[in-house]
Amino acid sequence: MTDQLVGDPAAGRRTNILDHLDHRTPGHSLPGALYTDPEVFETEIDLLWRRRWLFVGTVAEVPEPGDYLTFDVAGSSVLVIRDDDEQVRAFHNVCRHRGSRLVAPGNGSVGNLVCGYHSWTYATDGSLRYAPQLSPDIDRACLGLRPVALREVGGLIYCSLAATPDGDLDLAADQIRDYLTPHRLDRAKVAAQVDLVEEGNWKLVLENNRECYHCEGGHPELTCTFFPTWGLSEDQVPDRLRADHDRYLFAEADLMRRCDELGIPHRLVEDLVERPFGFRIQREPLDGVGESFSIDGSRLVGRLLGDLADPQLGRCTFHTQPNAWIHLLADHVVTFSVTPLSPDRTLVRTTWLVHEEAVEGVDYDVEALTAVWRATNEQDATFVRNTQLGVADPAYVPGPYNEAERHVDYFVRWYDAQIRSEV
Amino acid sequence: MTDQLVGDPAAGRRTNILDHLDHRTPGHSLPGALYTDPEVFETEIDLLWRRRWLFVGTVAEVPEPGDYLTFDVAGSSVLVIRDDDEQVRAFHNVCRHRGSRLVAPGNGSVGNLVCGYHSWTYATDGSLRYAPQLSPDIDRACLGLRPVALREVGGLIYCSLAATPDGDLDLAADQIRDYLTPHRLDRAKVAAQVDLVEEGNWKLVLENNRECYHCEGGHPELTCTFFPTWGLSEDQVPDRLRADHDRYLFAEADLMRRCDELGIPHRLVEDLVERPFGFRIQREPLDGVGESFSIDGSRLVGRLLGDLADPQLGRCTFHTQPNAWIHLLADHVVTFSVTPLSPDRTLVRTTWLVHEEAVEGVDYDVEALTAVWRATNEQDATFVRNTQLGVADPAYVPGPYNEAERHVDYFVRWYDAQIRSEV
Amino acid sequence: MTDQLVGDPAAGRRTNILDHLDHRTPGHSLPGALYTDPEVFETEIDLLWRRRWLFVGTVAEVPEPGDYLTFDVAGSSVLVIRDDDEQVRAFHNVCRHRGSRLVAPGNGSVGNLVCGYHSWTYATDGSLRYAPQLSPDIDRACLGLRPVALREVGGLIYCSLAATPDGDLDLAADQIRDYLTPHRLDRAKVAAQVDLVEEGNWKLVLENNRECYHCEGGHPELTCTFFPTWGLSEDQVPDRLRADHDRYLFAEADLMRRCDELGIPHRLVEDLVERPFGFRIQREPLDGVGESFSIDGSRLVGRLLGDLADPQLGRCTFHTQPNAWIHLLADHVVTFSVTPLSPDRTLVRTTWLVHEEAVEGVDYDVEALTAVWRATNEQDATFVRNTQLGVADPAYVPGPYNEAERHVDYFVRWYDAQIRSEV
Repeated sequence: MTDQLVGDPAAGRRTNILDHLDHRTPGHSLPGALYTDPEVFETEIDLLWRRRWLFVGTVAEVPEPGDYLTFDVAGSSVLVIRDDDEQVRAFHNVCRHRGSRLVAPGNGSVGNLVCGYHSWTYATDGSLRYAPQLSPDIDRACLGLRPVALREVGGLIYCSLAATPDGDLDLAADQIRDYLTPHRLDRAKVAAQVDLVEEGNWKLVLENNRECYHCEGGHPELTCTFFPTWGLSEDQVPDRLRADHDRYLFAEADLMRRCDELGIPHRLVEDLVERPFGFRIQREPLDGVGESFSIDGSRLVGRLLGDLADPQLGRCTFHTQPNAWIHLLADHVVTFSVTPLSPDRTLVRTTWLVHEEAVEGVDYDVEALTAVWRATNEQDATFVRNTQLGVADPAYVPGPYNEAERHVDYFVRWYDAQIRSEV
Repeated sequence: MTDQLVGDPAAGRRTNILDHLDHRTPGHSLPGALYTDPEVFETEIDLLWRRRWLFVGTVAEVPEPGDYLTFDVAGSSVLVIRDDDEQVRAFHNVCRHRGSRLVAPGNGSVGNLVCGYHSWTYATDGSLRYAPQLSPDIDRACLGLRPVALREVGGLIYCSLAATPDGDLDLAADQIRDYLTPHRLDRAKVAAQVDLVEEGNWKLVLENNRECYHCEGGHPELTCTFFPTWGLSEDQVPDRLRADHDRYLFAEADLMRRCDELGIPHRLVEDLVERPFGFRIQREPLDGVGESFSIDGSRLVGRLLGDLADPQLGRCTFHTQPNAWIHLLADHVVTFSVTPLSPDRTLVRTTWLVHEEAVEGVDYDVEALTAVWRATNEQDATFVRNTQLGVADPAYVPGPYNEAERHVDYFVRWYDAQIRSEV
Repeated sequence: MTDQLVGDPAAGRRTNILDHLDHRTPGHSLPGALYTDPEVFETEIDLLWRRRWLFVGTVAEVPEPGDYLTFDVAGSSVLVIRDDDEQVRAFHNVCRHRGSRLVAPGNGSVGNLVCGYHSWTYATDGSLRYAPQLSPDIDRACLGLRPVALREVGGLIYCSLAATPDGDLDLAADQIRDYLTPHRLDRAKVAAQVDLVEEGNWKLVLENNRECYHCEGGHPELTCTFFPTWGLSEDQVPDRLRADHDRYLFAEADLMRRCDELGIPHRLVEDLVERPFGFRIQREPLDGVGESFSIDGSRLVGRLLGDLADPQLGRCTFHTQPNAWIHLLADHVVTFSVTPLSPDRTLVRTTWLVHEEAVEGVDYDVEALTAVWRATNEQDATFVRNTQLGVADPAYVPGPYNEAERHVDYFVRWYDAQIRSEV
């Protein structure tokens, strides 16, 4: 083992993460080191974040040829650009000359990709078009931008930094696409985007998202439309929430009926633990008027997405591991992407999408559209920060999950299995 | 040794700190690495800060049941709370569910301790009272808050993070208590508290406090009442300070007489080098009017502490290693706690306490009460910062202490001995 | 090797840097780890920055006895002071008592050097003059400030942190001095000094300075007078720059003639790859009026330096590795020193010097004097930041230099050779 350590620091790190995983208690929160140890974090970057499919954005952000977005994770910057032939492609955002970033973080639109340093110029298909004074002996064909694997599923864009990405997303895509297409992301536009850096490990961010056990006390705005008994089995519903839960069951039955009539899929598909692309998708009812994430549940955008006519389609909620959850409603879509910045800092990017022809100030108001999730995100950031401080405390002992936290347990098991499969 | 390094990083760190200690020159300042090396710092945390008794505050901060204070050190957060049965107890500030901090840093008052994340609720004695939807199979008795060792001595609260703390504080307490009780911290209140982060190693902060060799040039406000010949032997007093020193001797004799008449102990008890709870206590005169830390030495608080009638009681100065010094005067008490934040950052918390019935704006003015030590602390922070920069310089060579710095030497020897005793 | 690693972390680091150097492709930018790896950085500090001659400032900054400047690099602070006997000397800025910094960073003037902590007092020749209450048993002669090697060449001050500095600067000095002396730095003063922290590795800062391949697109202000074909061979000059280049050739011939008439040396001396003190010096023409770094090339200071009468002396450009480039013009001198702060942060200090009798507001305007290089530095800082981000990206692959970047290649080869010679 000594030799491994000297010869390959990554080998030592992998032994380290396995040690911690071997010490975890099933059904309990993870050992503290898995949330805090820089070596664990590096291993996660290598084994998960550089190998799994990551949600990076939607086609709505790159509608025209030359439109691009960037997605940064673990020192890599991925440039997603719509080619002149309308194909969405991804490249590493690194000039092949001396390595300068080609574009600054964010969205934009270009004719060609021109490096600001020495004017090396690439076409939107990544090929090197122009390099001033470069010796003719050098083969320009070898100096195109390095490609990144990309898949589009119902308007959602996923990338993988792996040289040979797993095929699991392709298998999952057929199960997912029909849930997404009614919302027509190809005819949507970005109404708002907010970046929030949460002061906690990325797994705490995911775990927090995987249960609504904290919603009743912690999210007053969200629980106006998000039924607080989410995740509870019948016998777990406390008396004080019984009326809410009965309303939920009624709303669910009504939603199922509407969807069936419209031919829109709604049934739960959940495969969170075993597969590399762990995911869960389901259409679920909203409380109140049942249309959108507002205080009374009424729609937030006058113009519905795509060709939808019925505003009461609840929320189609799509969760993909390790880094996304997305709510698709009749009037808007809200996507969340998670990227780890350090063991104790995580970026959550929230994007609200509306019909491309919806008019701000007429069809929707940005403040109102974003109010519930901005508040909810801030509340979650507080939970994550306080939990990060606690799990970093030497006195922390993993505690028991209960049934309402079973998706947290699924996530933790997925994480354990994925790490072990890649070591 | 290689195996140890691979198997146990702490073992390698301990070898490292011993190497540095073995290279120190007696009677000289410490080798630079002991102030700068992150491994040394980690070892100090493990061997000293997690094992010795640390001053965390006073009973004046938690007068009523449910009142609490927090003390954070090395990733641990200690929650000191007065129980409903009036007992002051300490717990780790970590929820037993998924680890969230229970209370934010600072002082406060609660009925029960309710975790903000999922509403797990603990009584003030640490027992788990309520955990929503927790399976009945789980033994709640095993999910109480984890206790931290606590001792109260004359109103001062000390905690130890050790599972089995040493018994030395209990032995020392009997030598100390009678010096403190006349000041009645149980009937005092906090008038002001200031946190200052000094940009230097915690040992530089302690060393700076252990000598007044720098007072004459460095602390114009303090030396109005703090005799600048503190720590000098008779033959070391320079001519220019002769008159000051003679005034000191006269004031000392007068103070001894007053104390003896009142039955208040004043004699030096000093055991700084050998014992785990290194300490020093003595009542010493103040210059000028001799009452308090003001410019002319007159009292700063109209209402004296406890039942004291004589304002001219000088300063009872109590120093405890590794993290406190406290001055108890007739009109107020000022406590200083030190906590290491990183190899080169240290928190100094200064708290001024007055009689609980003293009225701000009538009996005392906060600005005036705190002026001398706020200025002095800032001056010391500059000394510590400049010294940290210098001892981190590869050109630094430890220099000789002189007699006026003998308490610095005592501290350094205590540090050496304590590390060696724990390795 | 394991033993080395355990016994001597530096040995492991050196193996590491050699591994990276062994993997570099000649004629290509360096492997990414050489710009980002903290171990590489530490090794560079040990092998280059603590052993080579570093440019620290000019005699113009310390004209009178007691005047001093500081130069900080890698935790060392060097105090350069003019002694009472008019000699410029350098010392470590560390008190021999308990290690405090003696002077704060920056320039100043003192009678003696008095430590602010305990008033230990040193003469300007570094000897300990006074140490209050220091035991008479201690030999004060052993407690003088620790000296740093210093050389002055034509008014430029170089220091070396090495115990036994190499003799190469002394050899080079004779080749250099005559280029510098006409500008009389001993009769100059500082008109302005600007510190800029660039967010990139020090080698990227140097490499950026070593080519003007990026000037045409990147430095609109500089290329008013800095011919954009700098570094290009005849056959590389692109058609669109042909007129510029012809103007350059004409201006060069004219400048050579003037210099020869005045007896001022101008020919290229370049020894950038092999010697420890890699350097390049040459007098080159400026575009436009040909006098100074202004938009139209006209002089920026009415009073010329020293006894110069002809304002059209172009720029004498002196580059020294690892940390300086200096332009000497008839009306002013501008020096640049580079110091590494961390793997990805580098300080660039720019200093503008004018005749000591030039009057601000009359002979020169500081804004106008500094405008071109302030703008150019900011532009370069952007290039360096973007390149640092890119070379830190796992997708970065070193790309090919072309002929216009041959000085970058020389620098990289120098770096490789110097590291190998010191390991």
